[in-house]
Amino acid sequence: MSHLLIIGGSDAGISAALRAREVNPAFDVTVVVADRYPNYSICGLPFWLGGQVADWRDLAHRTAGELEQQGITLLLEHTAQAIHPTDRTVTVVDGSGRSRRLSYDRLVIGTGAAPAHPPIKGLDQPGVFFLRTMSEGFALRDYLAARSPASAIVIGGGYIGLEMADALAHRGIQVTLVEYLPSVLATLDPSLGLLVGQELQQHGVTVTTGVGVQEITSRDQHLVVAGSGGLNVEADIVLVATGVRPEARLAAAAGVQTGQKGAVVVNQAMETNVPNVYAAGDCVETYHHLLGRNVYLPLGSTAHKQGRIAGENAVGGQASFAGTLGTQVVQVFDLVAARTGLSDAEASQAGFHPHSVPVETWDHKVYYPGAHTLHLRITGDRVTGQLLEAQIVGHRTAEVSKRVDVFATALFNRMAVEALNDVDLSYTPPLSSPWDAVQMAAQAWVKAR
Amino acid sequence: MSHLLIIGGSDAGISAALRAREVNPAFDVTVVVADRYPNYSICGLPFWLGGQVADWRDLAHRTAGELEQQGITLLLEHTAQAIHPTDRTVTVVDGSGRSRRLSYDRLVIGTGAAPAHPPIKGLDQPGVFFLRTMSEGFALRDYLAARSPASAIVIGGGYIGLEMADALAHRGIQVTLVEYLPSVLATLDPSLGLLVGQELQQHGVTVTTGVGVQEITSRDQHLVVAGSGGLNVEADIVLVATGVRPEARLAAAAGVQTGQKGAVVVNQAMETNVPNVYAAGDCVETYHHLLGRNVYLPLGSTAHKQGRIAGENAVGGQASFAGTLGTQVVQVFDLVAARTGLSDAEASQAGFHPHSVPVETWDHKVYYPGAHTLHLRITGDRVTGQLLEAQIVGHRTAEVSKRVDVFATALFNRMAVEALNDVDLSYTPPLSSPWDAVQMAAQAWVKAR
Repeated sequence: MSHLLIIGGSDAGISAALRAREVNPAFDVTVVVADRYPNYSICGLPFWLGGQVADWRDLAHRTAGELEQQGITLLLEHTAQAIHPTDRTVTVVDGSGRSRRLSYDRLVIGTGAAPAHPPIKGLDQPGVFFLRTMSEGFALRDYLAARSPASAIVIGGGYIGLEMADALAHRGIQVTLVEYLPSVLATLDPSLGLLVGQELQQHGVTVTTGVGVQEITSRDQHLVVAGSGGLNVEADIVLVATGVRPEARLAAAAGVQTGQKGAVVVNQAMETNVPNVYAAGDCVETYHHLLGRNVYLPLGSTAHKQGRIAGENAVGGQASFAGTLGTQVVQVFDLVAARTGLSDAEASQAGFHPHSVPVETWDHKVYYPGAHTLHLRITGDRVTGQLLEAQIVGHRTAEVSKRVDVFATALFNRMAVEALNDVDLSYTPPLSSPWDAVQMAAQAWVKAR
Repeated sequence: MSHLLIIGGSDAGISAALRAREVNPAFDVTVVVADRYPNYSICGLPFWLGGQVADWRDLAHRTAGELEQQGITLLLEHTAQAIHPTDRTVTVVDGSGRSRRLSYDRLVIGTGAAPAHPPIKGLDQPGVFFLRTMSEGFALRDYLAARSPASAIVIGGGYIGLEMADALAHRGIQVTLVEYLPSVLATLDPSLGLLVGQELQQHGVTVTTGVGVQEITSRDQHLVVAGSGGLNVEADIVLVATGVRPEARLAAAAGVQTGQKGAVVVNQAMETNVPNVYAAGDCVETYHHLLGRNVYLPLGSTAHKQGRIAGENAVGGQASFAGTLGTQVVQVFDLVAARTGLSDAEASQAGFHPHSVPVETWDHKVYYPGAHTLHLRITGDRVTGQLLEAQIVGHRTAEVSKRVDVFATALFNRMAVEALNDVDLSYTPPLSSPWDAVQMAAQAWVKAR
């Protein structure tokens, strides 16, 4: 029997474990899990805190029991302290402080990411929260239950910030969202980010953009957030959602090479520079399918893919990670915003000639009840015609997410914008048009090229 | 100025006209339209008859005025009588019976299809309806308004039959659907067709399958439908929806070659065998992207694509029709059923080795409210791994249609089933899973291969 050891019980680690068991039963698989919550959907925390999900236990993708049934050994509340590549062991400490060494034939590092602490004074006060782990979720839930805050400030207008603004508003809390950039959801063009900002405002969220937070102070049991442009807002709690940084210290200390933002450098086989050591998920650099090089772009869906590849290869497989496309989607109240592909800046930097066209069209034949406007932005290379990016904002019933996935599948195959018109997409009046919105966007782009 | 003449004012003809105007203003464009309803969405008739669409005028994709603004001349209530390729003219007759000849430099034939008249006695009685043109729609609407029928029999369980069963039930009419094959929606596997049949029954429609209708007679102001297996059902009206046949007599009489089911034979440039004569839409054979040969598969979305190609090439372009994938979708009450690709029989006949796997999964993370089961069936080639077909049945809010479009885009690019797992599809818990349902199906197939 050979030993596969995995550090980290979230998306990447568990995906690696499951895939390893699937493809090679000759390996036993042990997963070192820092907390008591293996395989939890951290992406689901906002919905639990917002009240749409009643029981936090439902956030588990699989229970510990289900994982053990797959032949996976879980070491809960164990923290990896050091990796020793020369004798292929890992020092772990259990909940009671006892230390021991576990040996491995192959190791997968899936230590994830931690909230980035922005340069803001006063982040360590009571009432200021980050949201990355189940424990942080519990802490926020307890505070909400004990204090029943009437108001909240969310710092950061990325997708976690947006989801938490939605969640807190859903609980009846008066929310102010503060974003450093000129519009929320900066992965979208500002014209589309503006629509998301309007959706927040229509649901009672105060949106402040183009403002940098400098300091959080407390005054009369309240927190005061101050920043540029005279920002001075008071609230009962503050949630900081300004992105994450890779948690790669353990790997780096063992001689594993790190790169962008300190993330572990891996190849498409998810191998690190250290023999027999693989890494996956939010702690690694991610290969970009269109750029042909690594970026840092941590996402749950990517962690699952990378974990699956790492797990397969660690037990003798030959799989290759095809790379991210930068696909993202978020639901904010009744709106869904999604994107896939290269931003204009990324595209230009990589030598493409991005040309972007905004398009408004209906999600389905307007004569059939319930039609909604889709706001699209499609980008292709002006010289070669290759599709580079698509962004869509529209109603949550307008199949925005899967329309972006049609674009993603086209990007994966390096299709030309014009070729989208050749694809036999499904049509029925209640759901689409003879030319789907995806194709109307493509035609608008071809005309405007 | 050169003359482009188009016979037919439905999807193919109007698409050809619009595209021709777009790419080459040196051609004037005239469209001969048999009725007064150019560019109407015939696919929308069931929704108007069902009452979801209030005004039939809303079924127009574009008004006559909008078409004329694009520089298109419409000859309404004109019927083409004969094509004379030798002197490049077409004889047309207007509403008052006056005949004249129109000359053309290029001709596009878009004469569409007519309802197939199955071998059933008594189809020509009052109260028996077909549904293919606006006029037929008006006739049925008038009859419904005048007689307020309490009961209806729909013969044929294809998508028009299903939509009309839904529409008539929506009006409070007691509907019996009679299908010759063992399950409705025979383009789906019987296991999935069964789900569609159950949905009909749950909404009060009586579904009778495996029964061939032989005769319609009238008795006491009612119609009696009799057939195999002792079928003897009485109702106030009968709708016959047993498919269509290409309307290609005009073309054939002019020496244009016809093939399967009598449809016009065209190449991928949408050229017929007669110089300067193109054809598109429901009157032509359709090139199949995966089979590499023509089939007869009339659909509105295909007619739009073919019309666009024909229009472009007729005025000097070099476009090529990439082919159908057999994609279809229909909404039946709260269910959406969709498919794309080759049936097992088509695949086997073409030399593939189809292997199909049924998969049930949630449309999004089940912890988030409103999750629905998706019933998928995925088919790949057991030898090469190539994706061949996907079928999905699920709730109308479960993004079934665009998930099938992800499969369609994959089929278009001849992807392997396994490669679907490599595509960076969008993920957020309210809308999907870290591995989307598309990918869970792919993984199930890979495991079962």
